[in-house]
Amino acid sequence: MYHSEINHDNICAISTPAGSGGVAIIRISGKESIPIVNSIFSAPILDAKGYTLKYGTLKYNGTEIDQVMISIYRNPTSFTGEDVVEIACHGSTYIQHKILEILHEKNVRLANAGEFSQRAFLNGKMDLTQTEAIADLIYAKSESAHKIALNQMKGSFTNELTELRAKLIELASLIELELDFAEEDVEFADKSQLKTLIDEIIKRLKELKKSFSYGNAIKNGVPVVIIGRPNAGKSTLLNKIINEDRAIVSDIPGTTRDTIEESFIIKGIEFRFIDTAGIRETLDSVEKIGVNRSFKMAKKASILIYLYDASETSQQEVKDDLLTFQNEDSLTLTIANKIDLLDKNTMIGDLKITAHNNSDVETVKREIFKCFQQIGDNHEGAILTNHRHLEAINLCLKDLEKVNVGIKNNSSGEFLAMDIRQSLHHLGTITGEVSNEELLGNIFANFCIGK
Amino acid sequence: MYHSEINHDNICAISTPAGSGGVAIIRISGKESIPIVNSIFSAPILDAKGYTLKYGTLKYNGTEIDQVMISIYRNPTSFTGEDVVEIACHGSTYIQHKILEILHEKNVRLANAGEFSQRAFLNGKMDLTQTEAIADLIYAKSESAHKIALNQMKGSFTNELTELRAKLIELASLIELELDFAEEDVEFADKSQLKTLIDEIIKRLKELKKSFSYGNAIKNGVPVVIIGRPNAGKSTLLNKIINEDRAIVSDIPGTTRDTIEESFIIKGIEFRFIDTAGIRETLDSVEKIGVNRSFKMAKKASILIYLYDASETSQQEVKDDLLTFQNEDSLTLTIANKIDLLDKNTMIGDLKITAHNNSDVETVKREIFKCFQQIGDNHEGAILTNHRHLEAINLCLKDLEKVNVGIKNNSSGEFLAMDIRQSLHHLGTITGEVSNEELLGNIFANFCIGK
Repeated sequence: MYHSEINHDNICAISTPAGSGGVAIIRISGKESIPIVNSIFSAPILDAKGYTLKYGTLKYNGTEIDQVMISIYRNPTSFTGEDVVEIACHGSTYIQHKILEILHEKNVRLANAGEFSQRAFLNGKMDLTQTEAIADLIYAKSESAHKIALNQMKGSFTNELTELRAKLIELASLIELELDFAEEDVEFADKSQLKTLIDEIIKRLKELKKSFSYGNAIKNGVPVVIIGRPNAGKSTLLNKIINEDRAIVSDIPGTTRDTIEESFIIKGIEFRFIDTAGIRETLDSVEKIGVNRSFKMAKKASILIYLYDASETSQQEVKDDLLTFQNEDSLTLTIANKIDLLDKNTMIGDLKITAHNNSDVETVKREIFKCFQQIGDNHEGAILTNHRHLEAINLCLKDLEKVNVGIKNNSSGEFLAMDIRQSLHHLGTITGEVSNEELLGNIFANFCIGK
Repeated sequence: MYHSEINHDNICAISTPAGSGGVAIIRISGKESIPIVNSIFSAPILDAKGYTLKYGTLKYNGTEIDQVMISIYRNPTSFTGEDVVEIACHGSTYIQHKILEILHEKNVRLANAGEFSQRAFLNGKMDLTQTEAIADLIYAKSESAHKIALNQMKGSFTNELTELRAKLIELASLIELELDFAEEDVEFADKSQLKTLIDEIIKRLKELKKSFSYGNAIKNGVPVVIIGRPNAGKSTLLNKIINEDRAIVSDIPGTTRDTIEESFIIKGIEFRFIDTAGIRETLDSVEKIGVNRSFKMAKKASILIYLYDASETSQQEVKDDLLTFQNEDSLTLTIANKIDLLDKNTMIGDLKITAHNNSDVETVKREIFKCFQQIGDNHEGAILTNHRHLEAINLCLKDLEKVNVGIKNNSSGEFLAMDIRQSLHHLGTITGEVSNEELLGNIFANFCIGK
């Protein structure tokens, strides 16, 4: 795939992290990248093969700038698909900026954020989901986020979409063929078969859509919300779990009012623990706002921990609370706290703990991780992590539902074909088979410079 | 040169600046660096030639870590002189640390600060002054500091020292030869020739020593100290020069008490402007301390700006002040301030200005730069920038003075030879021809990790 809108000018940027260090890399891509670097480098590289390294001195106007190592990549076997030169220089900020300055003099433009990746996409080196995965990979903070990004970069998501697209294209073609032969009343597309296929695609898209909350949780941290009545020990549990004196703890009910959020990694998964105001009727206006927020947070949880004070709260009250808080989007973990002197048999709950007891806290962590695994078990294949992809899938689903309605109402093939083409368009925006400058601009603006 | 004390184990470190970015580089050096990376890399690199690049996947225990570019350098044509592999991975901190973790599992030790450079030195790839220049190069903030470091890295200083050493070695040999034939009363070394040669070497060493204040000024910023009576407008001038409201300015004499320092670059040279308390007899105890500091700072200046209020200070007072402040180590620039309504002809000074006038401030800056050039004109050849080198030269000079005294007193050749050998030892510590673990430890401890 080669897009006409690609710029063929030469671009450069510092690709390594900002600041000074042992080594820094300046990347240059474009048709003239090799001759331009050749003109400021002591060793000849015009005829150098791709995938080779050259050591020498960088000079400009008779002044030596640095002794550097040059990597040469030739079109099309480079990251961008163009001729690429990378200059590994000593990592002083002075040298890095001096080299950019010289390249500027040589008519090499400073690259925009993500422009190297954008060129890789436009030159057909990778599709959009793969380039987006690069940005995710660079920002991945946990093992699982890293794994999803790496899989996506390698094309797992692309492969799945390509399959779905192929099926849809076949459908559309059959219907369009039928239209061509309309006068002869030939029927190429069996309507019931058509419906079966569309239902199948809808099912898979809905699965992908469902994987988003899981994928997004992994990417940004799995939201674990602790909820319950005042003074149940929620803040104590948060502090113990993150092993830090984060939330203010007191015996006074209503101590926590703002929601408090802290991240923590268990076995390579990032969890975002969110402590909330205890739920009760209150006259304190600040606390009242806090209580409202608690309800809202509960709905956003992947894992909802309902914590209650076993010495204070009756079985009936626990049951009532669970009815209020539980929701279908969250896994609920019911935990009885302050059980020191009580009879465990009389309590409702998945766990019975004393939040001050370290081994109990470890048990809670293990249980949280199990919940996470349980959520993950429901997902096979590619996992959605990107809002842009989710949106496109939603639009595609709408189109396919329209097709289904059309089939039911015996609509003309023209309309069916139009809706299928429209759904194909939306799927295509995900991988970039369909794209425009605005879309690309939005995507690559989130990249770091130099990538 | 090959030192026996070198460790041959495998070391690794992140060589690029800390943090996340598009690309990061992990450098590995040691005998097994290639087979070790081979064991975690998708493409075979055991037989790869030096100076080549390989693209592939980094895997460990069946888990993919990243898609990376590998650079291979083979002993002895590598930075350290050993087999070196560099892994260019996606610059997430997660990936960087994961790779270090895997290398650790593979028995690759995390390198100490400067350990790659240390190995380069121990394997005879460069001498000590050159490795030290690498650290200077990385921290160089201005064009001139960068230039000195680059020259030193390329061996300018080494060449000069090698020449001096060769002369001294010849001397020592002649004298020792004479000792061997002592009974026959043969005289190989003409004493007056000897003295001429020693004087010549002493002269050159003294020049090098003198270049230190210049070299050090360039490396750390040229100290420009503004001094004068209270309310002469020193703080105003500082603020105008750095174009920032840095020093508190008021009409009340004695406003500045602490010395204030700010850096500024003129034409690639870094200057450190130092504003001082106005000099006067005072009862204020804090101000008194300030005044004492002003005198001390004046002695440390490369360029001393004496500023006076032309509407208040008489010619005689200016002359008296200059006698007090001027010293032989600083160039003095005398500036008359607040000249708006006065007759310029009656004033003493190199410049006559109004500190509030922007074009006057530009004139001051130009004049400061001229002073700097004037200092530089006195230096030819290598420039000393390193305290360690200065110390060694001082010790060497002491030994050579002893030789001179010996010649004068007609001491025995044995003593002369011993002192010359001792001076050779001290010169040798500069380039590292003479070295020991403690010395090396001290030098490389100041390096960054990964270099």
